[in-house]
This record gives sequence, C-alpha cells and structure tokens, in this order.
Amino acid sequence: MSENGSSKKQRKTSKGYKPTREESALDVSSEPRERIALRMTVSLRRDPQVAVRHRCLTHTGLLANLVLTSLNLGDGQNLGTANGKIALDCSVRRTRQGHYCISTTDFFFPLVDSPYLQGRIGAANVLSDLYAEGVGECDFVLMLLAACRDMTEDDRNICTREMVRGFNDACLEAGTTVTGGQTVLNPWPVIGGVATTICSDGEFVKSDGAQVGDVVVLTKPLGTQVAVNVHEWRVRGTPKWKELTNRSILSREEAEDMMHAAVCSMSRLNRHGGGLMVKHHAHAGTDVTGFGLVGHAQNLMDNQAAEVGMELHTLPCIANTVKVEQSGVFDFRLLKGYSAETSGGLMICMKEDDARRYCEELELLDGEKAWIIGRVIADPDRKARIVEGIKILEVGLS
Amino acid sequence: MSENGSSKKQRKTSKGYKPTREESALDVSSEPRERIALRMTVSLRRDPQVAVRHRCLTHTGLLANLVLTSLNLGDGQNLGTANGKIALDCSVRRTRQGHYCISTTDFFFPLVDSPYLQGRIGAANVLSDLYAEGVGECDFVLMLLAACRDMTEDDRNICTREMVRGFNDACLEAGTTVTGGQTVLNPWPVIGGVATTICSDGEFVKSDGAQVGDVVVLTKPLGTQVAVNVHEWRVRGTPKWKELTNRSILSREEAEDMMHAAVCSMSRLNRHGGGLMVKHHAHAGTDVTGFGLVGHAQNLMDNQAAEVGMELHTLPCIANTVKVEQSGVFDFRLLKGYSAETSGGLMICMKEDDARRYCEELELLDGEKAWIIGRVIADPDRKARIVEGIKILEVGLS
Repeated sequence: MSENGSSKKQRKTSKGYKPTREESALDVSSEPRERIALRMTVSLRRDPQVAVRHRCLTHTGLLANLVLTSLNLGDGQNLGTANGKIALDCSVRRTRQGHYCISTTDFFFPLVDSPYLQGRIGAANVLSDLYAEGVGECDFVLMLLAACRDMTEDDRNICTREMVRGFNDACLEAGTTVTGGQTVLNPWPVIGGVATTICSDGEFVKSDGAQVGDVVVLTKPLGTQVAVNVHEWRVRGTPKWKELTNRSILSREEAEDMMHAAVCSMSRLNRHGGGLMVKHHAHAGTDVTGFGLVGHAQNLMDNQAAEVGMELHTLPCIANTVKVEQSGVFDFRLLKGYSAETSGGLMICMKEDDARRYCEELELLDGEKAWIIGRVIADPDRKARIVEGIKILEVGLS
Repeated sequence: MSENGSSKKQRKTSKGYKPTREESALDVSSEPRERIALRMTVSLRRDPQVAVRHRCLTHTGLLANLVLTSLNLGDGQNLGTANGKIALDCSVRRTRQGHYCISTTDFFFPLVDSPYLQGRIGAANVLSDLYAEGVGECDFVLMLLAACRDMTEDDRNICTREMVRGFNDACLEAGTTVTGGQTVLNPWPVIGGVATTICSDGEFVKSDGAQVGDVVVLTKPLGTQVAVNVHEWRVRGTPKWKELTNRSILSREEAEDMMHAAVCSMSRLNRHGGGLMVKHHAHAGTDVTGFGLVGHAQNLMDNQAAEVGMELHTLPCIANTVKVEQSGVFDFRLLKGYSAETSGGLMICMKEDDARRYCEELELLDGEKAWIIGRVIADPDRKARIVEGIKILEVGLS
C-alpha cells in the first residue's frame, strides 16, 4: 500500500495521511487497556438499542425534510441554491462587506473502532462540505465533541484525547486550525465540527450551474457502508459473517482489505478535489454521504438553475463490496446507488475536456483515481438515475 | 407579569418574547399525548444513569481543559485572547479580506420540559457568546439537532418540530436566520447551533481590555440551576422537595415563580446587552454559563492584557433561590459563585459612568434590570473572588 512499509504506525506521505492496514483492522496492540480504549464502537454495542442507529439516517433524513420544509427555515438569501433557502452542503451568505461566508456543520457517531481514525474521518467529512463548494482552503474550524458517558474515566480520557488528536491532525493537514468548540458528555461519543471560509467572487463554485452535456466526476469509490458493516459482522462473529464465509463469498483477508480501503478513503481529505474545481471550470458539485450516490445526485439536480437530470453509467466500488451486495446477505442498496457513504467523494458536473484534465491533475495530487461516472442531460423532471447495464469498477487498494 | 394577561399561550412584546407562567410550569394541557410530547426531560429521566448528567459539566470542563491544553490546539492567531489560542466565548479571526469573523458553537440537552422553550433557550444561549463580544447582530445561524431515539415516532416528530420552532423563533427575534445545520438521532435530544458574524474594526469588543477602576456589570440574575432542579424535585416529588416543603422553606407557588423567572431569563436574548457594549465603551465581556459567575469571572481575568483581578460585591439572584441554597438541602454553590447558569447574563468590565448609562439604556430596551456587581482591581495573581459580606439582591418577576 505504501513505499514506507507497514510497520510504521502513522505516516505522512506527500499525498497526505494514510492509515496503516493495522490501524484499519485495529490489530494494533495486545495490551488490554489500550485495546479497550481503542474499541470505540464497543460503547455503542453495549447499547441494546444500537441497531436503531443503522436506521437513523433514513429517519433523520425524513425528519429533517419534515422539519425544514414545514417550518420554512431560512430567509431566501442563501446563495447557490435553487430556492435561496436551506443550502445543499454549505450555508453560502453574502457578507455586509461584499464577500461570501461559506460555512457548514456536521457531527458523527463512531463507525470505526479507532478514536484517532474516527477523529480523522470526522474532520475529513466536515471539511468535505466546504470542498464541495469548490473551495480549497478552510479559514478555521470549531470542534464539536461528546465524550462517552458509559466508558470508565480512563478509557474516556484516552478515547476523547485520541479523537481530538485525529481531528486536529486532519485539520492541520488541511492547512486549517481548530479555534474553538464545545464539549459535552453523551451516551454515545460524538466528533464533528464547523468549517468556515470567507472568500471573494470567483473563489468558489455555486452549486446550481450544471449544463446539458456536462459529465459527472466522482473522486472516491463507493461502498464504505458495506465495508464498515462487514467489518462489524466479522469482529462480532455474527450469523451474517458466518454466512459470508460458509458460502465462500468473502475471505477474512478480503474483508480486512475492504475495511482498510474504506478507512483510507474516509480519512482522505477532499481538499485537492475542491481546490481544483475553480481552475477546471466546474459548474456544480456536492459530496456523497448519507443519502448515497443517487440520493445526492438527486439533491444536486433539484438544485440546478437549468432543467437538467443526471444519468449515471459507472459505479466505482471498493473491491469486493459488490459481491457482498450480490450475495443477498444484506441489501445495502449499493448497486441502486443508495448505500450511505461516510466522508465520500466529490460529485462534480463539468465539461468533458475539463473533467479529463481535472481527474488527471487530481490523481497526481492525491495518488488516487477519480472517474467520469455519468452525464447531465436535458430533463424537465430533473431526475437522477442509474442507467440500464451500469458498468461496475472494482477499486482495489492503491 | 405582563399587560397582555396570562391566558395567551405565546406572546411577543416590544421587549421580546416572554413565556407565560403556564408555559414555564408546563401545566399547559390535560391532553395526555401532547403532555407526554411536551415533557422532554422525561426522555432523560428514563435513563437510569441520568444522574450522571448533573456531573457532566465539571467532567467536561476538566476534560476540555485536559484535551485543549495537552493538544495545544489553535495557531496562536485567535484575537481577543491572552495567548492567541482557544478563545473565551467565540473564535475571533481576522479574515484574508481584512475583516473579522466571529463565530461560536454550543449545544444542549433538555433542561426544561417544553421543547419549544428548550429551542428558545438553546438559541438564546448560542447567540449569547456572540453578544458577549459586543456584537448586536448575528449574520446567520446553523442549527445542531438530535431527535430523541427513545421517543415514539409521533412524540419525536412533535418534540423535534417544537424544538426547531422555538429555536427558529428566537433566531428571527434576534434578526438573524437559520441557513443550514445537521440532524441526527441520539439517546438524548439535543438542540444548539453555530452563530457567526463578520464585522469590521470597531464593531466588536475584544475580551482583553479590562482596566483597574472598571466596574463589572451583570445583565441577568443568577440561580437558574437552582430553579430548574427545584422544579424537577417538585415534579418528581423527590425527598428533597418533601424536605423543602416539610421544613416550610419553599411553597409550591414560590417554586413555580422561581422556575418561571428562570425560564423567562434563560429564554431572553442578550442581544441588546451585546449591542450596547461598543456604544458604552465596554473594555471586556463574557457571558455567565456553565462555570458559574466566579468561574467565568476567572476565565475573563485570565484573559486580560493588564494584570487585573475582580472583586464581586453583589449577587443578584432569582427570588428564593438563596433560601433554597441556605436550607442546606443541596449545595449548588450559588453563594460561592459557582452554580452553573444556562443562558445567563453578560458580565462586562467598563468605566463606572459608562456602566450606569449602559444599565439605564439596557433596562429601557429589555424591560429588565442590570446591576453593577463588582470592580476590577490591580492584581498580579489575576484572581476573581467574592468579597466578605457580599450583598445579595433578590430579583423577583418583573
């Protein structure tokens, strides 16, 4: 995976931070205390109702729609949105001084066992909304933090410290700084933040400019939800994991690779992807997170000034997530484009020539591929959809 | 309490929103479903470990110190702080365009049973940090929201909607607007937000300019923690409540008045208090919340450019909170100045003449008193303390 060897616990490369395979698998220590402290999601598993968490997203998606729509929040002055109301990824406001204040907030419950990586992933995810606006630089970050009430004090201190360290390291790698925040105790640990940048005309990309004939770029593969859940099944030795192995669908090594690829992807910053959008004349962008590829594609289409829709013809997926999905052990809706992603890639509408140059330059900077996965078409119904005979790309560890 | 009569459920006066006595006491309906939905803190009480919540503040205060200090967050470029690191109430950053971006975030678990009022109080509390910087106008707000996992779907929808409505109404009253945010499901409901303003030189007050000879102004009375807890004791019929009544320390009506005064105070915006600071040449300010009066006074002194300390000679307290404290039923540390406040007043250092004019003008705008409660002295130890023979003011409902 890297020229530096896998024995080093944490490394920086010119491409930015990459966790080691051991970090992703969490076989990092045989020392019980550290091990317990590192197993963050254990705090969630203790909770008998934790299964509910997996349904949170749909619920809160519906809830947010209900609440935001019915209360008619906002003042119609949000920029880069179709109706001027609540924004797509960020709040984009014209300041009294004539500039633009672009701001976003997001916070997360653990989905990996390493608090350090959870902190990294949380920061990458918060910053990603800003990058989706074609911004490469974040001016400052506020940190949202909940320490886990149900841990021993020692575990809580270690876990919280490691989460913050991961969050802070990712912010430093992004060239920004944590300047404040809030800390509470909660049954479930939380890490997240607020990312803000103030910029001038021409320094960001409004999210509403997609044109017929544009292609659609995606900068990270799909499948993080599949990988994280298979990892949980494996670690907990659940019936689903036993079914996967008994039917020889997936080996332990493949599951570890899959989790490692997901963790590498989730902790990678979309900074370069965002920073290159203005240069390559991007028309509109968003990032792929909880609603899945098609969910976010639809949000993006709903937000366009022109009457456009999106046809998706290619699904780049983390290696082996597709065969897990096809096994029928669990329906993540990955191939329908609705599997939730965490800290997913940017999805950008731009001219085809621009897109090719964008992908080339981004691969040089990130050391990771980006793909043209669809095209923008004229469509009064503004529909985003996957075409028949979709092409699936299996994306292995780079 | 008001010239409009108490039968109207929600009112706006020229002084801003004030809850009715019924709203504060929550005897708002005999209809079971609405009643359940309105009893937000029930969701916390169900939790066997909820008692831990009362100790959260100390824990997270210590934790935040541990984490923030040990990780050396920030880049030394925060303005208005002694060391340029993590800010007192807000992150204050000079923008690339030469202005100032003042930003703060805060989120809360329910401490009143009405989700609407909890939303109001949450917004007032978030905005207060901005007002403590001498800013009267908030440019925009992002909303942080967690719907309660442990409610029925109906209750959850009603509660969440009401929280958001209260939050949004308070933002509208503050002349600002909700432009984005984040919604999740959590064992405990959460409401909070991010308040941001971009301003120019001379439009805000740096928090580090207190001078020897300044007096200290406080814009809301103390005792919200006492009132909220006594209310819980009464509603739950706990031994502490029985002790208070058996010993004839407090009547039911006094407890209701106390809670009502606390709810009125917590849901009142500090907007006018913040907006008048520049006009009246305030030198430094903060707001009084979780660390109590003396805790925040100490934070403020630790943050001053000059070697100054603070002597507090007057404690304005919500009526009857003092006799509850003195009864010995529970030690809130109110008279020591460490009782936690929620959405408390601004504490401002300014010249005595300015302070008198500030208090007069503020009373005209808010219809509520502000007090001179202490003075700034030369002190190389930078100590904030309560003087011997402190004067206690009992503040009744206005």
